Amino acid sequence: MVPRYSRPQMTAIWSNVNRYRIWFKIEALACEAMAEKGDIPLEAAKIIREKGDKAMAAFSDKDVARIDEIEAETRHDVIAFLTWLAEKIGPESRFVHLGMTSSDVLDTCLAVQLTQAADLLLKDLDSVLAALKKRAIEHKQTVTIGRSHAIHAEPTSFGLKLAGHYAEFKRNRKRLLAAREEIAICAISGAVGTYAHIDPSIEAYVAKNLGLKVEDVSTQVIPRDRHAAFFCTLGVIASGIERLATEVRHLQRSEVREAEEFFHAGQKGSSAMPHKRNPVLSENLTGLARLVRSYVVPALENVTLWHERDISHSSVERNICPDGTIVLDFALMRLSSMMEKLVIYPDQMNANLESLGGVVHSGEVLLALARAGYTREEAYSVVQRAAMATWTKLNTPEGKSFRENLESDPAVSGRLDKEVIEDALDPARHLKALDMIFERVFAD
Amino acid sequence: MVPRYSRPQMTAIWSNVNRYRIWFKIEALACEAMAEKGDIPLEAAKIIREKGDKAMAAFSDKDVARIDEIEAETRHDVIAFLTWLAEKIGPESRFVHLGMTSSDVLDTCLAVQLTQAADLLLKDLDSVLAALKKRAIEHKQTVTIGRSHAIHAEPTSFGLKLAGHYAEFKRNRKRLLAAREEIAICAISGAVGTYAHIDPSIEAYVAKNLGLKVEDVSTQVIPRDRHAAFFCTLGVIASGIERLATEVRHLQRSEVREAEEFFHAGQKGSSAMPHKRNPVLSENLTGLARLVRSYVVPALENVTLWHERDISHSSVERNICPDGTIVLDFALMRLSSMMEKLVIYPDQMNANLESLGGVVHSGEVLLALARAGYTREEAYSVVQRAAMATWTKLNTPEGKSFRENLESDPAVSGRLDKEVIEDALDPARHLKALDMIFERVFAD
Amino acid sequence: MVPRYSRPQMTAIWSNVNRYRIWFKIEALACEAMAEKGDIPLEAAKIIREKGDKAMAAFSDKDVARIDEIEAETRHDVIAFLTWLAEKIGPESRFVHLGMTSSDVLDTCLAVQLTQAADLLLKDLDSVLAALKKRAIEHKQTVTIGRSHAIHAEPTSFGLKLAGHYAEFKRNRKRLLAAREEIAICAISGAVGTYAHIDPSIEAYVAKNLGLKVEDVSTQVIPRDRHAAFFCTLGVIASGIERLATEVRHLQRSEVREAEEFFHAGQKGSSAMPHKRNPVLSENLTGLARLVRSYVVPALENVTLWHERDISHSSVERNICPDGTIVLDFALMRLSSMMEKLVIYPDQMNANLESLGGVVHSGEVLLALARAGYTREEAYSVVQRAAMATWTKLNTPEGKSFRENLESDPAVSGRLDKEVIEDALDPARHLKALDMIFERVFAD
Amino acid sequence: MVPRYSRPQMTAIWSNVNRYRIWFKIEALACEAMAEKGDIPLEAAKIIREKGDKAMAAFSDKDVARIDEIEAETRHDVIAFLTWLAEKIGPESRFVHLGMTSSDVLDTCLAVQLTQAADLLLKDLDSVLAALKKRAIEHKQTVTIGRSHAIHAEPTSFGLKLAGHYAEFKRNRKRLLAAREEIAICAISGAVGTYAHIDPSIEAYVAKNLGLKVEDVSTQVIPRDRHAAFFCTLGVIASGIERLATEVRHLQRSEVREAEEFFHAGQKGSSAMPHKRNPVLSENLTGLARLVRSYVVPALENVTLWHERDISHSSVERNICPDGTIVLDFALMRLSSMMEKLVIYPDQMNANLESLGGVVHSGEVLLALARAGYTREEAYSVVQRAAMATWTKLNTPEGKSFRENLESDPAVSGRLDKEVIEDALDPARHLKALDMIFERVFAD
Repeated sequence: MVPRYSRPQMTAIWSNVNRYRIWFKIEALACEAMAEKGDIPLEAAKIIREKGDKAMAAFSDKDVARIDEIEAETRHDVIAFLTWLAEKIGPESRFVHLGMTSSDVLDTCLAVQLTQAADLLLKDLDSVLAALKKRAIEHKQTVTIGRSHAIHAEPTSFGLKLAGHYAEFKRNRKRLLAAREEIAICAISGAVGTYAHIDPSIEAYVAKNLGLKVEDVSTQVIPRDRHAAFFCTLGVIASGIERLATEVRHLQRSEVREAEEFFHAGQKGSSAMPHKRNPVLSENLTGLARLVRSYVVPALENVTLWHERDISHSSVERNICPDGTIVLDFALMRLSSMMEKLVIYPDQMNANLESLGGVVHSGEVLLALARAGYTREEAYSVVQRAAMATWTKLNTPEGKSFRENLESDPAVSGRLDKEVIEDALDPARHLKALDMIFERVFAD
Repeated sequence: MVPRYSRPQMTAIWSNVNRYRIWFKIEALACEAMAEKGDIPLEAAKIIREKGDKAMAAFSDKDVARIDEIEAETRHDVIAFLTWLAEKIGPESRFVHLGMTSSDVLDTCLAVQLTQAADLLLKDLDSVLAALKKRAIEHKQTVTIGRSHAIHAEPTSFGLKLAGHYAEFKRNRKRLLAAREEIAICAISGAVGTYAHIDPSIEAYVAKNLGLKVEDVSTQVIPRDRHAAFFCTLGVIASGIERLATEVRHLQRSEVREAEEFFHAGQKGSSAMPHKRNPVLSENLTGLARLVRSYVVPALENVTLWHERDISHSSVERNICPDGTIVLDFALMRLSSMMEKLVIYPDQMNANLESLGGVVHSGEVLLALARAGYTREEAYSVVQRAAMATWTKLNTPEGKSFRENLESDPAVSGRLDKEVIEDALDPARHLKALDMIFERVFAD
Repeated sequence: MVPRYSRPQMTAIWSNVNRYRIWFKIEALACEAMAEKGDIPLEAAKIIREKGDKAMAAFSDKDVARIDEIEAETRHDVIAFLTWLAEKIGPESRFVHLGMTSSDVLDTCLAVQLTQAADLLLKDLDSVLAALKKRAIEHKQTVTIGRSHAIHAEPTSFGLKLAGHYAEFKRNRKRLLAAREEIAICAISGAVGTYAHIDPSIEAYVAKNLGLKVEDVSTQVIPRDRHAAFFCTLGVIASGIERLATEVRHLQRSEVREAEEFFHAGQKGSSAMPHKRNPVLSENLTGLARLVRSYVVPALENVTLWHERDISHSSVERNICPDGTIVLDFALMRLSSMMEKLVIYPDQMNANLESLGGVVHSGEVLLALARAGYTREEAYSVVQRAAMATWTKLNTPEGKSFRENLESDPAVSGRLDKEVIEDALDPARHLKALDMIFERVFAD
Repeated sequence: MVPRYSRPQMTAIWSNVNRYRIWFKIEALACEAMAEKGDIPLEAAKIIREKGDKAMAAFSDKDVARIDEIEAETRHDVIAFLTWLAEKIGPESRFVHLGMTSSDVLDTCLAVQLTQAADLLLKDLDSVLAALKKRAIEHKQTVTIGRSHAIHAEPTSFGLKLAGHYAEFKRNRKRLLAAREEIAICAISGAVGTYAHIDPSIEAYVAKNLGLKVEDVSTQVIPRDRHAAFFCTLGVIASGIERLATEVRHLQRSEVREAEEFFHAGQKGSSAMPHKRNPVLSENLTGLARLVRSYVVPALENVTLWHERDISHSSVERNICPDGTIVLDFALMRLSSMMEKLVIYPDQMNANLESLGGVVHSGEVLLALARAGYTREEAYSVVQRAAMATWTKLNTPEGKSFRENLESDPAVSGRLDKEVIEDALDPARHLKALDMIFERVFAD
C-alpha cells in the first residue's frame, strides 16, 4: 500500500522483522515441545531459544540482506531464514524445524499476523463506534429531513441517521470478531498434513502459546476458505464505510450544506477556486472502499488450491494481506476522525426540511383522512392534490403551504378538524420513538 | 436461473405465489397487532384474515395477471397487490397497510424468502456432509499419494482428503447459519424508520410470528450490509465446491484415473469420441461456482444506498436473490450426489503412489539422517542425491528404486541400519494420526 | 433475466428456436460444402437442406419437448438435436455432422447469437446517442453550474454536460464494434482443432455464409479470451450508463431539482407519500449497471480452460450470455427513453448557479489579479478572503455578494478597474468554447 | 507492488521523479504555447523552461522531501509542487499554471505514465510472442495427446498447442494497442472543461508535443471509461497468462511429466522433500493473474464520478495504476523466460499418447464405419464397444489394443478392410493441417 494510506501501527505488523520474529517464535516453541517430549535434547532447545531470542532482538537490515542473499541462491524463503538462523545458533540448529514443512511456519505466521491485524482493526472499529455514538447522542434531537430516492420523505433526526450507521458498524465489529476466529489457526502437520514426522502434541503446544486453535485438517496448508471469509468481512466493512462517506458527501454538496468536513486553516480546496471546501476525506474513503472490496474476489479464487496445496495463493496474499488490512486500518481511522470533527449545521437542516412547504408531512395526513372514513384510494388522491398544488407553485408568488392547501380543500376541511391537521403536521411525532431506538442500539 | 440448474424446491420459494402469500401474511399479522392495540377494529382484522387467507389459498395465474394489470398502470408493485387485495376483501381493506410503507412489506418478505432459502441450503449442506463423511470413513485406510504443486509429495489416505473437505463444509455450514441469522430480520418502521405512523409493537408482533428479529435501525429499508454478508457466505461456499470439484477433475484425468464420476448407461461422452468419460459434473460445478461468486460484488455495491434508501439495489436483488440461492442449491445437491456415487480406484491410487520409485518417502529419510548426526544441509544433499538418481532414471533399464539408491550410498548405509531405512520407507507412518484426526473432524 | 428487464427483441435471440435454427444452418452449410467437395452425395445435401428447412420453419414446442426427451437419456444436447433432426430428415441424416465435433456447432452458434445481440446493442447505442445529441443541442446555451466534488465550481452549459456523455457513448459504440468483431468467429476444426476428420474448406464456407471469420487456432473451442473481451466491453458500457444515471439522480434530488424524469399520469411515487416523484428509472439503471458489471469476472475466469478445453465455461455462459445482453439492451433503451423525455428546469439551474453569491467566478478574478501583478499566492489569498466573506454570510442580513466584497476590498479595487471585475464575473466566458467543442463531438 | 514482483523498468515510470518531470514538462509546454499566443512574456517562458529543466535534472530526494513538507501544510499535491517550482524559478513562476486546474496536470501526466507503461508492456508481449513462436516452430511436429475435459481426446502437436497461445497473445497485443490509444489523451480545459480561462490552442500544443490526442469533452478530468477499458484489457491479458500457466502446471504434474520448468542448480523445491521440482513459476503466474484481474472491478467502479468530477478515483488509481502495470510487466517477462527455457519431454508425450491402447483414434474409425454404410447410431455403438473393451482391461494380462479389439469384431472387419483400419489409426492425419495453421498464425 502506498505510504499515503498507511499507518505505522499496521505497517509494522507486515514488516520483515515482525515476520521473522514470528517465524522464530514458532520454531522455538516447536523445539521446546519436542524437547519436552524427548525428541530433541532439552539443552538444545534452551540454546536455540536463547541465541535465537538474542538474534531476533538485534535483528537489523543487515540480517534482512543476508537472508535475501541466501534466498537468491536457494529460491526458498524458509530455507533461507533457517540457514541464517543456523549461522546465529550454531550446531544446535540441526534440531530446528525437525519434521516440519515450510508451510507449517508460513501459514501459522500468517495466522499470527492476520490476528494482530484484526486486533488493530477491532480497535479502529471501536474508535469509529465511539465517534458515531458521541455525535448521535449529541444530535439525537436535531431534526432533519429523511430522504428516500434523494427526495424529501419525512422528518427524522440527525442522531438517528448516525445511530443507524453505528448499528451497522456494531454488526461489522461482530463480523470481524468472527473473521478473526476464522483465521486464528495453527497448523504444524507436515508435508501433506498427516503428522508423519511430527507429533500432534507439538502443534498443540505451539498453538496454545500463540493463542491459536489447531486446524482440524491441514493439507500442508491451512485451507483458504478461512482467509476468503476474512477478506469478505473486510469487504463488507469497507462497504459500510462507503455508505457513511456517501452520506457525508451528499450533506456537504453546495445545495444541501447540512454538514461539512472539518477544514484546516492552511488547507486549499482547489488551485483555481479558492472558495471551495470539498468533501475530500469522504471522497477518498469512497475510493479506499473500492480498493478493500477488490481484494474479495482474488481471496475467493485462492480457495481452490490443487490437491494438498499449490502455491498460487502466495503472490496474491503477499499483496492483499498487507494492503487489505493497511488500507482498511487507515480508512477506519480517517472515518473516525472525520466523524468526530464533522461540522454540522442544524439551521440548514431545518431550512431544507421546510423548503418544500410542508408536503413532507403528507403521510400522516393520509392516515388521518383514512381514519376519518376515506378509502385508501380516496385519501391518497385528496392528499396528492394538495401536495401537488404546493409543490408545483413552490417559491412562486401564488404559492401556498401544504397546510393552507389542505385547509382550503373542502374534501379535507369537511372531514378533519383544524387540530387534527395541526397534529398531523407536527414534526414531534417523528422523534417519539427515538428513546426506544437509542436504547436498543446503544444498550451494550 | 436457467431451468437446467434449478430445483423446484428452491424455485418455489421465489415464485409469485410464495411472495404474495408472505406479503399477505405480513399485512394480516400487522392488522392483528393493530387490532389488539385498538388501532383498528378487531372485526376488521378478522375479516381481513379470513377473506385474505381464502384468496391466497385460491391464488392462481389469473390473480397474478390481475396484479400485473394494476401494476402496469400504477407502476408500483405493493400498491398493485394492495389494490387486488382490496378487491378480494372489500371495505375492510382500508385498514390494511395503515401507517406502513412498501419497504416494510418488501424487505420483511425478502427476509422470509432468504431465510427459507437458507434453510434449504442448510439441508443441502447436510447432504454434502453426509456423503463426504460416508466416503471418508469408507476410504479412511485407502492409501494414496498426497500432492503439493501437483507433484507427488508424501502418502496420505483418500479418506483424509475427504475429511479435509468435510471439515471445510462444516465451516461453511456454520457460516451459513450465521448468515441466515444476519438476514432473518423484520422491519416495519415507516417511511424513514421513525415509527411516526405505526407503533413499534406492531413490528415486534409480526417479527415474532415470522420467526424474525427486529432491525435495530431501519431507514425505510433493512440495511444491505446484512445481504452483502449473506452473499459473501454463498461465495465462500461456492469456492469450497470448486475446490472439491477441481480435486475430482484432477483425479479423473486420463493419466491419474484414481476416481471417476458415475457414468450412466445411456450417457454419451462425446459426439465424436465414444471412449470418453468426462468429469462433466465437476466441470459444471466449477462453472456454477463462478456464477455464485459473481453475485458477491453487486451485493457489496448494494450496501451504499443514498440517505435513508434508494431503489438501486432492487433490480440487483430481483436477480441475485433467486439466482444465487437456486444455483447454489442445485450445485450442492449435484455435489452431494456426485460424491455419493463417485467411483474410486484404490489400485490405481497405489500404482500412482509407487510410480516414482519410492522417492516420496524422502522426508522421513532426511529426518533419520539428521537424527544420525548429519546437519540439515548434509542430510538434505545426501537424500537429494538418491532421489535424483531414482527420479532421472525412472522406467529405464538401469533405473533403481529409491531404497536401492539409498542402500548403495555409503553416506547412508554408513549411518543408518537397514531396519531404520525400512522403517523410514513404510507408508504406515502416514496413517498413524488418522484416528485422532477423524475423531476431531467427525466428533459432532 | 427476469421478464421485467427483458425486451422481446433480445430474448428472441436466446430462444430455443433461434438456437436450433442456427445449429441447423451450420450443419446444412457444412453438408453443402462437403457435397461440393465430393465428400458426401450432392443429393443428400439437398435433401438435408430441404427437409431440415421445413422442420425448422415448423419448429414448435413439441419439437423442443422431443429434443429434451432425447437429451434426458443421452445427456448430450447436440446429439439430442441430431437425433431429432434424423427423425425429420430420414436416412440422409447419416451425412450430417460428419467429422465434426459438438463444439464446432455450439461455439459457432454462440458466435452468431452474440453477433446478433451485438447488432441490437449497437442500435440501442444509436438511440442513446440520438437522444443525447438532441437534448445536448437543445440545451447548448442553457447555463448551469459545473460541480467538482459536488461543490459548485464554475458555470458550464447543460448541453455540454450531455455532450460529454454523448462522447463517452460514442467511444462505447466504437468499443462494442471492436468487441463484436472479436466474437464473430467460426470454428469447425474437430475434436482438438487439427482438422483431422474435416477439411478446412468446410469451415471457410460456413464462416463466409454466416458472416464470420475463421478462428486461427481453435482447440475444439473458440478461445474464451474473445468472450472475456466482449463482456469487459459490456461492463464498460454499463458503467457509462451508471455515470449518466447518477447525474440524473443528483439533478432530481429535492435540493437541486434541475431535472426530473418524466412522471406518468397514473404513476405513484410512494404508497405513503403522495408528493414524491422519485428518479426510479435512473436508480434502476444504477442497479442494472451493477448486474452487467458482475458478468465481467466470471467471463475472465472462463478464459483458463484446461488443455484443449473443459466444459466449465458452459454453465457460466448459459447465464451471462443471455442475461448480459438482455439486461444491457433493456438498460440502454430505458436510458434512451429517459433522456429523450427528461424534464429540464433552466430556471432552477440559474437559481442554483446564483445561490452562492457569485463566488463561483473566483477563478477568473484570481487570474485578473495575477495579470495585475500579484503573485499566485497573494492573488489566491485576496480572492479567498472575498469568497469566504461571501460564503460564510450567505442568506444572512449582513451578507454581501462576491462582487460587493471584491469591490469593497482595497487590495482588489486598487488594482482592478470596475470593468475588469465586471468582465471576470460574466458567465458568457464559460460558453465561448461551446461551438468548437460541439463541432468536434458531433462532427460525424 | 511488493519488490518481489517488480522490475525497475516499470517501477521507474511510477517514481516521484518521473511524475514531477512530466508535471514540469506539461507546465513548461503550456507556458511556451501561452507565450507564443502572447498571453505571457516570451522571456518568462524561456526562463521557466531553463530554470525548470535544471531543477528537474538535479531533482533529488531532498526535493521530494521539500514538496512533501509543503503538501503537509496545503494538503494539495499540485499546489505543493508549484510552490516548490516557484522557489526554483523565481518571479517568473507567476506565469506558470495560469488558467489551468490541477487535473489538467494530473490527468495529462497519468496519460503519459500509462502510455509509457503500455509501451513497456507491448515490448513484454513481443518477448512472450517471440518465445512462443520459437518453441512452437521447434515442436511443430512433436506429437502429443490433445485433451478435452483433461481426458485424452485425439493427437495434436505440442507446437500447435503453443501456436494457439501465440494467437491469443497476438490478440492481446492488438487489444493493448487499442487500450493504449484509449488513454493517450491530453486535457487542459480548466475547472469544468469549458476553456473559460485558457485557450484550446494551449491544450493542442501540449498534446502534440507529448504525443497525445486531445479529449473531446473533459469535465475537469479525462473521463474514466478510458481507464476502465485499459484495465479490462490488462485483465484479459492476465487471463491469457493464467491459461498458459495452467497448461504448464498440468504438463509438469507427476503423472503427466510432459514438460518441466527449468530448475536452477542451487534451487530447492521443498524444505522436507528434496526430490521435488515444482512448477512454482507457473503457479506464481496463476496468482499474479488473479491480482491483475482484481483491478478490473475498481476501475469500472471509478467511471461513475459525480457531476464534473469527484476525487474518489484518485486513491484507487494511486494503487492500481502502478500495481497493475508493474505486476503485469513482471508476469509477462516471467512467462516469456519460463516458456523460453521450458524443458519438454517428447518421449513422455508419446508414452502418454499410447497409454490408452489406441482408443484416442476412435473418432476416425467412427467416420470410416459411417462411410461404410452404418448409421451414426450404429457406428457409434460399434466403436464404443471396442473402445470400452480396450479401456476397461487396460494394463491387465487379458487386455488388448483398440486395433485388436476392432479387428476381432465382425461388425468392423465385415465392413472395413485392414488398410482402412490402419489408416484410421494413423497419427499423421492429425498433423496434416499444421502447415496451413502455422501459416495463418505466424504470417505477419
